[in-house]
Amino acid sequence: MTFSNSRTVRIEWGDCDPAGIIFYPRYFEIFDASTAALFERALGLTKFEQLKRFNFAGYPLARTHAKFIKPTRFGDDATVDSAITFGRSSFEVVHKLSLKGVLCVEAEETRVWIVRDPATGAMKSHPVPDDVLARFR
Amino acid sequence: MTFSNSRTVRIEWGDCDPAGIIFYPRYFEIFDASTAALFERALGLTKFEQLKRFNFAGYPLARTHAKFIKPTRFGDDATVDSAITFGRSSFEVVHKLSLKGVLCVEAEETRVWIVRDPATGAMKSHPVPDDVLARFR
Amino acid sequence: MTFSNSRTVRIEWGDCDPAGIIFYPRYFEIFDASTAALFERALGLTKFEQLKRFNFAGYPLARTHAKFIKPTRFGDDATVDSAITFGRSSFEVVHKLSLKGVLCVEAEETRVWIVRDPATGAMKSHPVPDDVLARFR
Amino acid sequence: MTFSNSRTVRIEWGDCDPAGIIFYPRYFEIFDASTAALFERALGLTKFEQLKRFNFAGYPLARTHAKFIKPTRFGDDATVDSAITFGRSSFEVVHKLSLKGVLCVEAEETRVWIVRDPATGAMKSHPVPDDVLARFR
Repeated sequence: MTFSNSRTVRIEWGDCDPAGIIFYPRYFEIFDASTAALFERALGLTKFEQLKRFNFAGYPLARTHAKFIKPTRFGDDATVDSAITFGRSSFEVVHKLSLKGVLCVEAEETRVWIVRDPATGAMKSHPVPDDVLARFR
Repeated sequence: MTFSNSRTVRIEWGDCDPAGIIFYPRYFEIFDASTAALFERALGLTKFEQLKRFNFAGYPLARTHAKFIKPTRFGDDATVDSAITFGRSSFEVVHKLSLKGVLCVEAEETRVWIVRDPATGAMKSHPVPDDVLARFR
Repeated sequence: MTFSNSRTVRIEWGDCDPAGIIFYPRYFEIFDASTAALFERALGLTKFEQLKRFNFAGYPLARTHAKFIKPTRFGDDATVDSAITFGRSSFEVVHKLSLKGVLCVEAEETRVWIVRDPATGAMKSHPVPDDVLARFR
Repeated sequence: MTFSNSRTVRIEWGDCDPAGIIFYPRYFEIFDASTAALFERALGLTKFEQLKRFNFAGYPLARTHAKFIKPTRFGDDATVDSAITFGRSSFEVVHKLSLKGVLCVEAEETRVWIVRDPATGAMKSHPVPDDVLARFR
């Protein structure tokens, strides 16, 4: 089961470093927002609304692998295509960021569905709820 | 002479702090991009293209004053209305960030038009070029 | 009653923009951490520990005014001198960021002491607790 | 040939997200600064001085792989141990970020030594200079 989303992101002056190209941690900010956008598209709720509706604490990253193929710079409008595949308590998202059809960055991320223990407040992994999964089908 | 622009900005999860509201330095990132968007609208060029076309080094901030009236949080789509007024080598931009018509932040910024000295590479202020000013009329 | 703190901050490559100087929103990240450092010095607790100990939700910004006098760049070790003055439910902090004794940025901020309403979860201002004030004397 | 460096980094309030833990792109900002610190220790020059002295344009990332084992939060003082191994025009850095001896994040990065073509201004890879390599022995 794969679900995907595409969005456009403007690379800003403040995203770039003295070499004039994007400072790479900004890509991970973009990918985090792209994962949120993908969930928003599937669930019809913003992340703020999702957390309340499905009573979870987020989906922090467990692992990421990224390849930086071609730099982007301020003024560029990048396309981010994101595709998600679910496991039981985790999911994988592949993000491909491109400029006019040319791949610039590819990143895979593994995220974990997290809930707060009502007793202790501690965060722990939890199976992705069925009613969430149903919306991605 | 005043020229204005309006754009919509999504407040992201990663813009927010442990209180669940936007971490205020993110507003200044938003305002910097809003000033660039205003110039892009007037000049029909991205900031990258502007720097080449008008041979300047940027318009760094000299001064800012901001009031934070109402917090925003992830999932909010904020409207930023920005209006510019030019001096000789500087200009002022007033940004009003609002949610559904309710003002959340108001910021005034004074920026200086900067060129690089061709001999030394040092940055110095310079009158805003007439062909830039003409596009804002 | 004024209490002050001084700390050194390294300006990093990733803090700087394509003009090779610091991207100004980074200064506000520095000042936010400098206010936290000032409280940590007075209270002997990190901000994480403070929130638990004094049961408040933070001290968001109500207003700031900053002057940018001289740019800093990556590799610079800046000194930040911060001085606080308390009102009833708010306080003012003046930050002076300098390089080798030369003032680069000066910022004043007004912050509000915030607690969460136990019933609704809403954030509201609250007088700064006496046992907090006592530690700043 | 491996060269290593260790430094301490304070996790700040503004580095953390509404879940109260660090927003993971901040780790990459920390690792970028840790690589710069490693070069500064070997070369005895800040990155600003390095770029001038060795006439290069930076060492952008080609690839990174990171595992997030245990979250950190504001107030934490994390230790970052970074070890570098050189190839011809590239190098690998392994960063291990830990709290009191417990590993929280491990990241490997591959970076490329970049120079600007004097004719076109374009950036291209270049063998790491011998006098740089000599300082890491």
